Amino acid sequence: MPRTDSALPSPTDVSASTEQGAAPVGPVRLGPDAPAALRPAAAEVRTGFWHARREVNAHTSIPQGPALLESAGNLHNLRLAAGTAQGEFQGGYPFVDTDVYKWLEAASWQLARSGPPADGEENSPGPRELAAEVERIIALVADAQQSDGYLNTWFQVRKNGERYQDLRWGHELYCAGHLIQAAVAHHRATGRDELLVVARRFADHLDSVFGLPGSGRPIDGVDGHPEVETALVELYRETGERRYLDLAGYFVDRYGHGLLGGEAYCQDRVPLREAVTVEGHAVRQLYLLAGATDVATETGDAELRSAAERLWRAMTTAKTHLTGGLGAHHDEEDFGDPFELPNERAYCETCAAIASIQWSWRMALLTGEARYSDLIERTLYNGFLAGVSLDGESWLYVNPLQVRDGHTDPGGDQSARRTRWFRCACCPPNVMRLLAGLQHYLSSTDAEGQGLQIHQYVTGRYRGDLDGTPVTVSAETDYPWHGAVSLTIEETPWERPWTLSLRIPQWCHEYRVRCGDRTYDQTDAPVTDGWLRLERTWAPGDQVVVELGLEPRLTAADPRVDAVRGCVAIERGPLVYCLEQVDHPGGGLDDVVIDTARPLAVRQRPDLLGGVTTVVATGRRRAVPDTGWWPYRSADAGPAVAPSGESVELTAIPYYAWANRQDGSMRVWLPTS
Amino acid sequence: MPRTDSALPSPTDVSASTEQGAAPVGPVRLGPDAPAALRPAAAEVRTGFWHARREVNAHTSIPQGPALLESAGNLHNLRLAAGTAQGEFQGGYPFVDTDVYKWLEAASWQLARSGPPADGEENSPGPRELAAEVERIIALVADAQQSDGYLNTWFQVRKNGERYQDLRWGHELYCAGHLIQAAVAHHRATGRDELLVVARRFADHLDSVFGLPGSGRPIDGVDGHPEVETALVELYRETGERRYLDLAGYFVDRYGHGLLGGEAYCQDRVPLREAVTVEGHAVRQLYLLAGATDVATETGDAELRSAAERLWRAMTTAKTHLTGGLGAHHDEEDFGDPFELPNERAYCETCAAIASIQWSWRMALLTGEARYSDLIERTLYNGFLAGVSLDGESWLYVNPLQVRDGHTDPGGDQSARRTRWFRCACCPPNVMRLLAGLQHYLSSTDAEGQGLQIHQYVTGRYRGDLDGTPVTVSAETDYPWHGAVSLTIEETPWERPWTLSLRIPQWCHEYRVRCGDRTYDQTDAPVTDGWLRLERTWAPGDQVVVELGLEPRLTAADPRVDAVRGCVAIERGPLVYCLEQVDHPGGGLDDVVIDTARPLAVRQRPDLLGGVTTVVATGRRRAVPDTGWWPYRSADAGPAVAPSGESVELTAIPYYAWANRQDGSMRVWLPTS
Repeated sequence: MPRTDSALPSPTDVSASTEQGAAPVGPVRLGPDAPAALRPAAAEVRTGFWHARREVNAHTSIPQGPALLESAGNLHNLRLAAGTAQGEFQGGYPFVDTDVYKWLEAASWQLARSGPPADGEENSPGPRELAAEVERIIALVADAQQSDGYLNTWFQVRKNGERYQDLRWGHELYCAGHLIQAAVAHHRATGRDELLVVARRFADHLDSVFGLPGSGRPIDGVDGHPEVETALVELYRETGERRYLDLAGYFVDRYGHGLLGGEAYCQDRVPLREAVTVEGHAVRQLYLLAGATDVATETGDAELRSAAERLWRAMTTAKTHLTGGLGAHHDEEDFGDPFELPNERAYCETCAAIASIQWSWRMALLTGEARYSDLIERTLYNGFLAGVSLDGESWLYVNPLQVRDGHTDPGGDQSARRTRWFRCACCPPNVMRLLAGLQHYLSSTDAEGQGLQIHQYVTGRYRGDLDGTPVTVSAETDYPWHGAVSLTIEETPWERPWTLSLRIPQWCHEYRVRCGDRTYDQTDAPVTDGWLRLERTWAPGDQVVVELGLEPRLTAADPRVDAVRGCVAIERGPLVYCLEQVDHPGGGLDDVVIDTARPLAVRQRPDLLGGVTTVVATGRRRAVPDTGWWPYRSADAGPAVAPSGESVELTAIPYYAWANRQDGSMRVWLPTS
Repeated sequence: MPRTDSALPSPTDVSASTEQGAAPVGPVRLGPDAPAALRPAAAEVRTGFWHARREVNAHTSIPQGPALLESAGNLHNLRLAAGTAQGEFQGGYPFVDTDVYKWLEAASWQLARSGPPADGEENSPGPRELAAEVERIIALVADAQQSDGYLNTWFQVRKNGERYQDLRWGHELYCAGHLIQAAVAHHRATGRDELLVVARRFADHLDSVFGLPGSGRPIDGVDGHPEVETALVELYRETGERRYLDLAGYFVDRYGHGLLGGEAYCQDRVPLREAVTVEGHAVRQLYLLAGATDVATETGDAELRSAAERLWRAMTTAKTHLTGGLGAHHDEEDFGDPFELPNERAYCETCAAIASIQWSWRMALLTGEARYSDLIERTLYNGFLAGVSLDGESWLYVNPLQVRDGHTDPGGDQSARRTRWFRCACCPPNVMRLLAGLQHYLSSTDAEGQGLQIHQYVTGRYRGDLDGTPVTVSAETDYPWHGAVSLTIEETPWERPWTLSLRIPQWCHEYRVRCGDRTYDQTDAPVTDGWLRLERTWAPGDQVVVELGLEPRLTAADPRVDAVRGCVAIERGPLVYCLEQVDHPGGGLDDVVIDTARPLAVRQRPDLLGGVTTVVATGRRRAVPDTGWWPYRSADAGPAVAPSGESVELTAIPYYAWANRQDGSMRVWLPTS
């Protein structure tokens, strides 16, 4: 049973035992010489919206992982590879090991933020049980590794050890990448190196195998699914071994040269440095971009940085759904063409949302610009969070923006209905690892030690390091339900001015910030690059109160987004809203129009979906007369099915909370006539 | 080189040598006791629109077939199965034999309509060469057949003769179906039985293998891809063997009972008799419905007929694109949900258009209602004909209604660019067989011998049989470019009244029909069930002149078709129009809006695309300012990108003719603001 915020002591998100100064125990710990604008700061989430989601993750999703990995056969496969079990390989994909690795990463971040259990604390399973599970599974992984460092159960068991014969589909380096990320997480979080040793051996093996012709390495090639690039940069960061960074850079630059057959699907149509838009399989593109950004961050490669900035903009301007979801095609899980953003067939894989957050965070650090965290916020609250049910026990692989009346669900991984686990179970442990490490995406300090930036607003504490001196800012907020955030300076250098930078969200057009005797608003505030910058000589106890206007709003799209012409969406703060069938008895949702002239009302609904704020609009139902057998008619004849006078109250719920009640239709975009 | 209409003698479409009375040499030759409303009549196409398309089919597409089947390996596979060649099986699908069978069917109809070559006639390759190719390939097929009648090269060569182990994916009965259809065509067209013998042996084998538990047959099962049902009914019609009809009926009714795992994809989710809408893989659904309608037509099964009528209506009201195209999803080639009719991702497989025409023709005969031929006309001129290039040498597998500016084409079978041949080459020979047999979808007589119905207007001759007495009506028209059709009674019974029924197209709201001293129009005409019925005692030389109003028109969709909200399409007569990039230099198509208040102009363009009528509209280009990195904005702020004042002449070409010039964007539906 998840503990409630009030009844039990809060866990400490920043584990004192593993913190080194203020450097956060999380992903993207930049190398000491990385010429990035920002460095991640530590944060903890004490109560509130994300705390609740993370509690479910900690107490339901993550603890259920080992049993699900056992029943799906992932752990069995490791035993087969180790020779400690008999039987058939389980699962139909060569990348099933990554489900284990992503779970290990999630559990590692969880161990870091949980800290040791307090005496008598009920924590089911508490850090001890979780730590034991992690140790047990790491041992399975270590046992499965071959003597030269290679590790992939599919190829060891199913393919008789044939390696690197099918880089396009084999996912061997993709698996290595997730193993490395898990190992880095485990080492950072616990200080233990059982898994890091395994990962380094694999990475060393890869470094002996892959390289340019003439490098002495036998294979000049890349993996059909990028992932190892960003992982290798993290391994460099954790170990200081420059050759891991070099290997990552080699991989990043070998895409787009036809080594995989030249298809966009595998990111092989055009080199990243020359690309003008994101394309192909969305998750592959995004992981590759995360890796390329990592390389640019550590090396200062300006051309690579420029490509990343260009592609991020191409993605957000023309290939991103309102929810932050990415990937327009089910077929080949492809990004689709510019402004091709369908609703019912939006693919918007949960993993793509996660990859987008990971990439954007790297861009935020590299550039210092707030818009990257604008997209992170939007994605976190919408396209990402919809991927897991409120109870943490079932999942969506795809995240459509519409389910039609009369929808026939195909079932399977790409169902519009929540599923307990997937045949291709990439998304659930990916959600777990992001939620478990979420505190690492919230704040930063700038490279010059001039200040602390707050990227996301939570109740908790942000802690940075300014030239060796800690600064700590605590925050209280009921965001995103309420727009007020109270910030208190807790630690600050003595009589040394520094800048507290607050992200003014891109969606926010009315706000007020009070700081001492000054009040700023949207007409008069020191905002640059999306940051409201407060340079002060701070004293402990100083307060800053941010009030972000949360009036619900109607949003329209660029007219080139054909799928939503003549429609609006309801948004409030960072939340995208949707209608669900269950709230609208007496008819479907496909015959509803919204009356945009009528006001939107806000209702606090603690009873609903774990406690949400709904937005209530006024609409009408179209009468749908029998138009014969052909649904197309003369445009001169006027609408064949005029809206009737029947007024309907439209109750919009946050998109992230959809599909937690009975099956039915859903829509984000609402026709206006 | 295709011969032109004027320079060379016209071929005779109805081959005197193989006609038996007025019964047409074509598909769907109803059994003598079939309780259908109509029976197909014979027709010939002498000049004009369809004649030109059929000439290309006869002189380019069909003659190129054998070489393409040889280079793709289909013929090689037959030799492998026969043991007369060595090597690897070619092609990655278990249904590659059907490409051969469909080509044989096409060539057979072609032989029937060509008749013997006139002395000295240049006919490249003429009937003699074509007949020799047909004989040669039939011999390959016969050689490949196993002693008990089984024939499938994939299973014989690749699967060591393992049969019926994988009915869901194996396509063994699907292949049998196409073989049977080819054999029936060959027998009807030429009177020869070399292929019919092969087909009957296979059908007899199937009849010994498949049946209900307790029937003495070892397997109670159906094929994952319906097709054999309609073929078996045709075999019954050709041979009089009732057990083929019974076997077809058995198969029709065994879908929907979980024998294939219960998925909609394979038509196994729900029995056809209980289904409320079309679903799953579009071609599978349509072939099954054609077979079911065949069974209902021959047996008088009222429940099955009722299901077919219900499903046809469910399809046309909510799951048919404006072009007649069917299948909304690339993924699983699925019908999609009601009113889910995307433009750029419309699948609209060419084979689905063909299957729709085949099914609707059976419905037209069964019921006597003209709307089925309305859909046939729409599909023929649009969704079907777009599948083949104007030169008959390249093909579209999918037929989208939009190609975006900035489209990245994936290549392969599902490309929006024409392809010389496909890896899965189902569509090209399917187009060939429909075009070669098109004359059989044009006219009918009613079961009571009361009259002749003209379903489609061509220049040529319609010939029916009224209780043993021939009636012949000749027609002259430049349809669909001009709306006038002049009909002349050539043969008629002496002083016996009969009814000439003319289909008034569903799209046509203004027309005039002159018959002797009477003139009818849309305000006053004896129209029932879509037929204008002229009952007269006719004399040779009597004339009827039909004038169908061809004013270009703007068409809107049911508002539940979200994909085209706020858009119109240009249509003229049976033709759907589209814009192509090549006609609109200086910008893309995604920033164009049409001004619906301005008139549409019609231009005859003999120079363009083999001679077309274009429709010219007035539009504007939207200015597209930089809206920042996020394409969504407050709905209150008004359009961020208002149409500029720049007026653009929009030149619309018939949809069937798109993708015959340079690659670029295309769209059927045009935003109005």
